[in-house]
Amino acid sequence: MRNSNINDKLNSVFYPRSIAVIGASRRPGSVGHSLLANIIDSRYQGIVYPVNPKAKGILGIKCYRNVIEIPDVVDLAVIIVPPQFVPEVLEECGKKHIRGAIVITAGFKEIGGEGIELEEKVKKIITKHDIALFGPNCLGVINTDPVSSMNATFGTQMSKEGNIAFLSQSGALCVAVLDYAIESNIGFSKFISMGNKAGLTENDLLDYLKNDPKTDVILMYLEDLADGREFMRIAREITNSPTNPKPIIALKAGRTLLGARAASSHTGSLAGSDRVYDAIFLQCGVLRGETLEGIFDYVKAFSSQPLPKGGNVAIVTNSGGPGILATDSCIRYGMNIASFSPNTTKTLKKILPPTASLNNPIDLIANAQHEEYEGTLREILKDKNVDSCIIILTPTAFTDVEKIAETIVQVSKEFKKPVLSCFLGVYDVSRGIEILEENGIPDYRFPESAVRALSEMTKFTRWKRRPQTGIKKYKVNKSRAKKIVDSVKKEGRQFLLEQESYEILKAYNFPVVKSFLAGNERQAIEAAEKIGFPVVLKIASPDILHKFDFGGVKLNLKNKTEVRRGFQEILKKVLAKKPNAEIRGMIVEEMAPEGKEIILGMNRDAQFGPILMFGMGGIYVEALEDVTFRLAPIRELTATMMITRTKTHKILQGFRGEKPYDIEAIADCLKRLSQLVIDFEDIQELDINPLIVYEKGKGCAIVDARIILGSEKPH
Amino acid sequence: MRNSNINDKLNSVFYPRSIAVIGASRRPGSVGHSLLANIIDSRYQGIVYPVNPKAKGILGIKCYRNVIEIPDVVDLAVIIVPPQFVPEVLEECGKKHIRGAIVITAGFKEIGGEGIELEEKVKKIITKHDIALFGPNCLGVINTDPVSSMNATFGTQMSKEGNIAFLSQSGALCVAVLDYAIESNIGFSKFISMGNKAGLTENDLLDYLKNDPKTDVILMYLEDLADGREFMRIAREITNSPTNPKPIIALKAGRTLLGARAASSHTGSLAGSDRVYDAIFLQCGVLRGETLEGIFDYVKAFSSQPLPKGGNVAIVTNSGGPGILATDSCIRYGMNIASFSPNTTKTLKKILPPTASLNNPIDLIANAQHEEYEGTLREILKDKNVDSCIIILTPTAFTDVEKIAETIVQVSKEFKKPVLSCFLGVYDVSRGIEILEENGIPDYRFPESAVRALSEMTKFTRWKRRPQTGIKKYKVNKSRAKKIVDSVKKEGRQFLLEQESYEILKAYNFPVVKSFLAGNERQAIEAAEKIGFPVVLKIASPDILHKFDFGGVKLNLKNKTEVRRGFQEILKKVLAKKPNAEIRGMIVEEMAPEGKEIILGMNRDAQFGPILMFGMGGIYVEALEDVTFRLAPIRELTATMMITRTKTHKILQGFRGEKPYDIEAIADCLKRLSQLVIDFEDIQELDINPLIVYEKGKGCAIVDARIILGSEKPH
Repeated sequence: MRNSNINDKLNSVFYPRSIAVIGASRRPGSVGHSLLANIIDSRYQGIVYPVNPKAKGILGIKCYRNVIEIPDVVDLAVIIVPPQFVPEVLEECGKKHIRGAIVITAGFKEIGGEGIELEEKVKKIITKHDIALFGPNCLGVINTDPVSSMNATFGTQMSKEGNIAFLSQSGALCVAVLDYAIESNIGFSKFISMGNKAGLTENDLLDYLKNDPKTDVILMYLEDLADGREFMRIAREITNSPTNPKPIIALKAGRTLLGARAASSHTGSLAGSDRVYDAIFLQCGVLRGETLEGIFDYVKAFSSQPLPKGGNVAIVTNSGGPGILATDSCIRYGMNIASFSPNTTKTLKKILPPTASLNNPIDLIANAQHEEYEGTLREILKDKNVDSCIIILTPTAFTDVEKIAETIVQVSKEFKKPVLSCFLGVYDVSRGIEILEENGIPDYRFPESAVRALSEMTKFTRWKRRPQTGIKKYKVNKSRAKKIVDSVKKEGRQFLLEQESYEILKAYNFPVVKSFLAGNERQAIEAAEKIGFPVVLKIASPDILHKFDFGGVKLNLKNKTEVRRGFQEILKKVLAKKPNAEIRGMIVEEMAPEGKEIILGMNRDAQFGPILMFGMGGIYVEALEDVTFRLAPIRELTATMMITRTKTHKILQGFRGEKPYDIEAIADCLKRLSQLVIDFEDIQELDINPLIVYEKGKGCAIVDARIILGSEKPH
Repeated sequence: MRNSNINDKLNSVFYPRSIAVIGASRRPGSVGHSLLANIIDSRYQGIVYPVNPKAKGILGIKCYRNVIEIPDVVDLAVIIVPPQFVPEVLEECGKKHIRGAIVITAGFKEIGGEGIELEEKVKKIITKHDIALFGPNCLGVINTDPVSSMNATFGTQMSKEGNIAFLSQSGALCVAVLDYAIESNIGFSKFISMGNKAGLTENDLLDYLKNDPKTDVILMYLEDLADGREFMRIAREITNSPTNPKPIIALKAGRTLLGARAASSHTGSLAGSDRVYDAIFLQCGVLRGETLEGIFDYVKAFSSQPLPKGGNVAIVTNSGGPGILATDSCIRYGMNIASFSPNTTKTLKKILPPTASLNNPIDLIANAQHEEYEGTLREILKDKNVDSCIIILTPTAFTDVEKIAETIVQVSKEFKKPVLSCFLGVYDVSRGIEILEENGIPDYRFPESAVRALSEMTKFTRWKRRPQTGIKKYKVNKSRAKKIVDSVKKEGRQFLLEQESYEILKAYNFPVVKSFLAGNERQAIEAAEKIGFPVVLKIASPDILHKFDFGGVKLNLKNKTEVRRGFQEILKKVLAKKPNAEIRGMIVEEMAPEGKEIILGMNRDAQFGPILMFGMGGIYVEALEDVTFRLAPIRELTATMMITRTKTHKILQGFRGEKPYDIEAIADCLKRLSQLVIDFEDIQELDINPLIVYEKGKGCAIVDARIILGSEKPH
């Protein structure tokens, strides 16, 4: 339901001049009562009209029998009536020209059966009347912007004002989040329970939040994506904005519920749907959280601190244990323990007592006071080798915790580097933490959490600073490839013969080994002579998929005699096993020199389209699962990242004295593959296995390929 | 300092009849004041004697000038005097026959220089007087047992009574833990800040806690181990006790500080010291925590709930999102989502509304009341396919949270299966959580934390139920191996020739390929004929370690002529590159058939002794780091686990239609290796690389081996 005026309509939801609460109730504790009370109590800046045909007034406010009767323009309807009445109420809203609606009521899609029908009815009505709708089955919406100051939820708490927008597909999570946020001093700009997403989805919201001046960080809890490709487009616009990039942190649940689907290709069996989500998030710069707790740790830092320029962390502590735990975590999460410049160390030596440890982590010793913290913090933040700082304090009885907190606030303001703290208390540190958090220094209960947050910030920095690349467009012979695909379709086949797969790949200038289809022994020998010995022979039959198992392959044939004998032997073996197989001849191909075996593949997902895979060849690809996935089309950088993000990359770079392999040639193949599968929607699965890779500069060779067409046109 | 009466002396610390607080102070806020006040405020059941030559009385209690003057037996001295006076005070304690001491004072080993000397002095004094000492540089000790009720720390809080013992090597961590525990309703039996471990160590404490009736769970924060082998012995006694096994949970910090040491063998370079700790903990059943927060989640469950019999989890929720998050976590942490028996599903269908989801996770729908929770919980706990249960509640306005909490408490008591809860609140759930936790149901803020705790419990169950195996003792020719080692030592060499390594392995009946050392071409041909063609030729020279790089190896020589030519060619190449190399001849060896290449190794750690390694062969072993380490000697089960705990195992089991490999033969080699390196302390490093493994039943073959002796006797 995305269209041009969607943001205007969303403004009707977030900044309504007036709200009708349809189903408002006099009964305390009921949803219809809580909701109205929350709107009032949140000091909503517009006018609220309760609608309830049975009540004269609720909470001292005059009631209306229905929206039509309200003698005023209404921008937003909040609907709490029983599910069966929702369509009728929405029809009335339409007539009243209400542009925004929130349906709190449950009992729709989520209960199945007639609930699904009811939700379809709702969808039709909102389309007809052009209503922007949240829900059904949701908690409601909060906008903390003082201009609106609206809590249109039935929760018990109003959020603090802040710069984080929160979107959730689960109402229950919403409330847990609100509770936790209040406890943790986290404020929100907008807080949205999306419910069943019958109308507005995360994509509409992202598009709106992109330009919301009140929102700096976007946090989402998702169980699915309404439209993965569209999500990528909008999310990328946000995270990649040259002027105002905003981090998006997503917790995607249901990771493991679906499991890997059965598929006939390597790529298919490895590309579990959750891997696809990983790819989607990576490709559009969205940070994926692992746990609810983790994402809170992240937003606390993102919403209050500048991004680090790099991964060099300084740790300042006044006790050993927590400092070591922080150091451990830095290494675990891929951060560097910063090496200070000589000047820093020299100054630290002057200002710190002789028992202090001047190396990173800096241990100021138990009785450090604000002077030591101040001098140290200023010195290390000045150091160009330091990108960020974690400050740990475990006070003694004589530590002035508040003074140290104030010092940290003050010094950190002099620099544009993130500072995170971890005050651990034997003596009460709560006032110190308050001072820190009121002034935008996020404090963590455990040093590990602070490090994790810094690590996510660094990831976002890397994303923002990555080289911007485009999608390479190769000159290829598309029409030739199309001819082959069409002829296979005409035959009613799904599985292409190897030679057909080869021809398609050749049309896209992949480095396929030289090969010919030979109808008989004589042609095979001629082909072998053209190619040059040694050669490989492979049976060509639409009835035989697993050539090796059928004895349908002969390697390393060194002369005419061997080719002739090989031809005969293959024929004999194959026909013995499958007498009725249709034999179209044999492929005679170049025997490629040995190299490192790689697998490239593509699997077309019903929901997300073509997904590319890169991994090590052989049985290791599946046993070790050292593979990467990305959605096609891929940019140039993505092609490279698909390779560098694996452990295999270590080997390809030239491990233990081996020469480096031709990684660029692999990336080239990945980019061609991307173009091919975008050009041909008919290609359902594609495996290049193996791609043999040679020394850097010497390219690679495809010695086996398999293409499967879709049984019907994928959508 | 472990000896027979150590537990008696520890009783003097934990259950002293009287305490002298040496360095007690009148100044509020000082450590000497806080400590005395804490002893008094904790309602200590013995008598406390402040010692301070300058004060007449402190906190209303008569002061003594020194311990000698105290007109009573003193069991425990708590010492807070400045560091330089500590030795003198301890001497007095010795004279007073005080058996236990806690030195709170800092300024010892941790500051280096003279601090180290001072600590050495302390060690001598406590040995002389046979004093059991905690510290120096510690927070003190708490014993919540009402018989003693002693808080001999200078923290601000006394721990709740509980069944968890906590040992910490960091005082700062101690106090953070105490704070967190009080907030989280966690109680301790004993709470010990070990400080610099100049006297008592974790090993003494473990030995004591083993039989402490007040302690059911042991939690430790460690930065190093006083004696790794001894730790393993005692920890294993505790976790493996047939009558009263207690879980031990350790957070070992300093994971990454040391880094991998340079070493000349594969095993050495892979065996970073942290991997050794992993091995130690695994081999004695200690559960290793990753973060401070994690270990709290674990102990909450361990201390209050029975262990699950297996990994099948039932999840009961009244809202979708949190249920999905719990499910995701179960899969991530290796738990199974239980499949209910048909009877359970049948009954659930009867007692639950039609919109409820009866499959695991069971979704009771938002408005579920205690009747639904009761019926469901009882039904699934009855089900033999369910080993544990996580209950999630996100209440609505009409949910009776307290009633549901009471129901959970009551029903869970009917069964011996762990029940963990996660109450998430839109409406206040705090009273419900109180009811749960007071009755031993651990409640978690996030479903993920509950799952992680269950997963650790399941690990401990698996440890307890694993088959008990011994250390296999093979009949070997030890004296023959000794003769070779001695002769190499006599020559002053560290690196054994390959043939020497082979001979040692043969003496231990390893499956070394047939091989002979040939001094000239004729002998080489004779040897080849004895072995049978094809053969391999390898240069034998103490001056050439990297045979391949020097052209010192020829593979697959098929007849006499090839052997003769090979002999000449190797000689020529090697002498061209290293004209002065001492050539002892060539090894002629059987050309082993192809198989899967594995690497076995040993590296003798200065602190922990011989560490065995198993991993995949080739360059993958290092690039993918798919290796396991264990300390020798290994039990039979450990040998098997070294193999099954790798991803390589998937391949060895017969992956993608391959036949399974001879895993037992590998395990046999590992056990022989264990025996060999225990027998010969001189062996510093040993690599068998590769070990070629064949189909199940067909054994394996060693085709390259390298033994390095220690330059001095390791200790």
